[in-house]
Amino acid sequence: MANPAYIAVDWGTSSFRLWLIGADGSILGESRSGEGMTTAAKTGFETVLAAHLAKVEAPADLPVIVCGMAGAKQGWVEAGYVDVPTPLSAILSKAVSVPGQSRDIRILPGLAQRDKATPDVMRGEETQLLGALGTSSAGAQAVCMPGTHSKWVHVRDSNVTGFSSFMTGELFDAISKHTILSHAVAGAEDQPADPAAFEAAVRAAFERPAMATNLFFTARSGQLLHGLGAAGAQAKISGTLIGLEIAGALSAADAKVDISLVASGRLQGLYEAAFQTLSLSYTTIDADAAVRQGLAAAAKAIWPN
Amino acid sequence: MANPAYIAVDWGTSSFRLWLIGADGSILGESRSGEGMTTAAKTGFETVLAAHLAKVEAPADLPVIVCGMAGAKQGWVEAGYVDVPTPLSAILSKAVSVPGQSRDIRILPGLAQRDKATPDVMRGEETQLLGALGTSSAGAQAVCMPGTHSKWVHVRDSNVTGFSSFMTGELFDAISKHTILSHAVAGAEDQPADPAAFEAAVRAAFERPAMATNLFFTARSGQLLHGLGAAGAQAKISGTLIGLEIAGALSAADAKVDISLVASGRLQGLYEAAFQTLSLSYTTIDADAAVRQGLAAAAKAIWPN
Repeated sequence: MANPAYIAVDWGTSSFRLWLIGADGSILGESRSGEGMTTAAKTGFETVLAAHLAKVEAPADLPVIVCGMAGAKQGWVEAGYVDVPTPLSAILSKAVSVPGQSRDIRILPGLAQRDKATPDVMRGEETQLLGALGTSSAGAQAVCMPGTHSKWVHVRDSNVTGFSSFMTGELFDAISKHTILSHAVAGAEDQPADPAAFEAAVRAAFERPAMATNLFFTARSGQLLHGLGAAGAQAKISGTLIGLEIAGALSAADAKVDISLVASGRLQGLYEAAFQTLSLSYTTIDADAAVRQGLAAAAKAIWPN
Repeated sequence: MANPAYIAVDWGTSSFRLWLIGADGSILGESRSGEGMTTAAKTGFETVLAAHLAKVEAPADLPVIVCGMAGAKQGWVEAGYVDVPTPLSAILSKAVSVPGQSRDIRILPGLAQRDKATPDVMRGEETQLLGALGTSSAGAQAVCMPGTHSKWVHVRDSNVTGFSSFMTGELFDAISKHTILSHAVAGAEDQPADPAAFEAAVRAAFERPAMATNLFFTARSGQLLHGLGAAGAQAKISGTLIGLEIAGALSAADAKVDISLVASGRLQGLYEAAFQTLSLSYTTIDADAAVRQGLAAAAKAIWPN
């Protein structure tokens, strides 16, 4: 087994993931929990990290590289933003140290797009992006990173030229739980998925994005008039939001841009189904592997030996 | 003072409004509360109505005409739907009687659009529409009735040819209360309104509807990067939803259709500002007066003497 070389941490708003990484890049230990920024801001970032470090029996002098919301203003130590357009590699030189710690802990910055009409921010996805593409990718790419706030990043020759956040995941939750459609989707988790309803909704929203909030409502009227089931209603909401997101993201891209999907698990399946429905070609990159690779690149840049 | 002729009731999901109407059409008494269908389904429709009738001292034999959610499946007595396309006057002959009452109580039906791709329903707005347009309007009109679920109805020569519901009002609430944007809008009610932010959002969503869920997110990123205030963030959410709704509604209409706005109060102001921003001409019809006129037409058809 390789000697431990560093600790990699992806610290999001609502999730915490830590890996103990060996000198050869192998994963020697792993610890996950729901102690994201929101929780850690109350219980203490240092306390949360210490508990996970103990769990993987991390040597006392091992350095820690962190990406994500731990670097937000409401996080542990503010790590600022690198402004776009920027080479992807710029984040590597802008990590901030957490003061007063017995070991070396660095937090990577986010990216900011400061223009007046389309301000945008990301924290964590820039590291995933670095891991997914490396620092020497060629040509134009649209990188899709689905989630609570999906990010679509436009990259040309390893430079981030711009990006857009879409509130897809969070709107799915808010609509499913806090509108009249909560009745339409009740019990959906106990039913088989309805891929036909999902595909139809993706197509409808992609073709007529202006009808999005009407398409949501058809989850209710479809139930009242056509006996649409809960899984079908859920698929309609999800498909409408994803179709709308893809239409928006591609409206800002060259028609023939390559799409890279950085995702895993359930979201990977949904977005792949959506791209196939729309006959869009794409390459999938595993999101978990990408963030580890990005953190590895940062660790290598910061601690070269 | 005129003799009382009938009682008019607009019974929505979350609101109850009753008017005592004189033989000459004048309003002799009025009673309002939050006892909409949701509340009345628990406390009893008969009990709620009796309390309001007592409040306006309604004579014991006076008949009652009701529109709205009281006629829904989960309401008092199901009043069914009239299917579109239909002449507006068709709802007049389809009112159902509430059985077992000491006085004559009738509930008007809703409208249903049953086609597979765009199912839709309304209850209450059909009566408002009848009041706003009468049964002998000529030409093509797009009638906008903003609210929790805004309705856009396409009417040609007093026939309803189709309609669409947009979840504008309910999404505004869900987004403002149950997403990360709740932080961005906190305190907005204590600040002066931001009409410039509203107009910019209306225009942006109308021109690029596919970017809607990205435009929502700029309420947060605008706050982080440009110091956008709470009133500005709220205006962005509201403007985006209304611009999106108008884009969707007009995508299904002739370019030169006349827009009739049936609204009152705060919503009237917002939609008028949105139409002006988009240089769309419109005529405003007071929503309260419209529903009373619709109920009056129904009362006259049902009880001609």
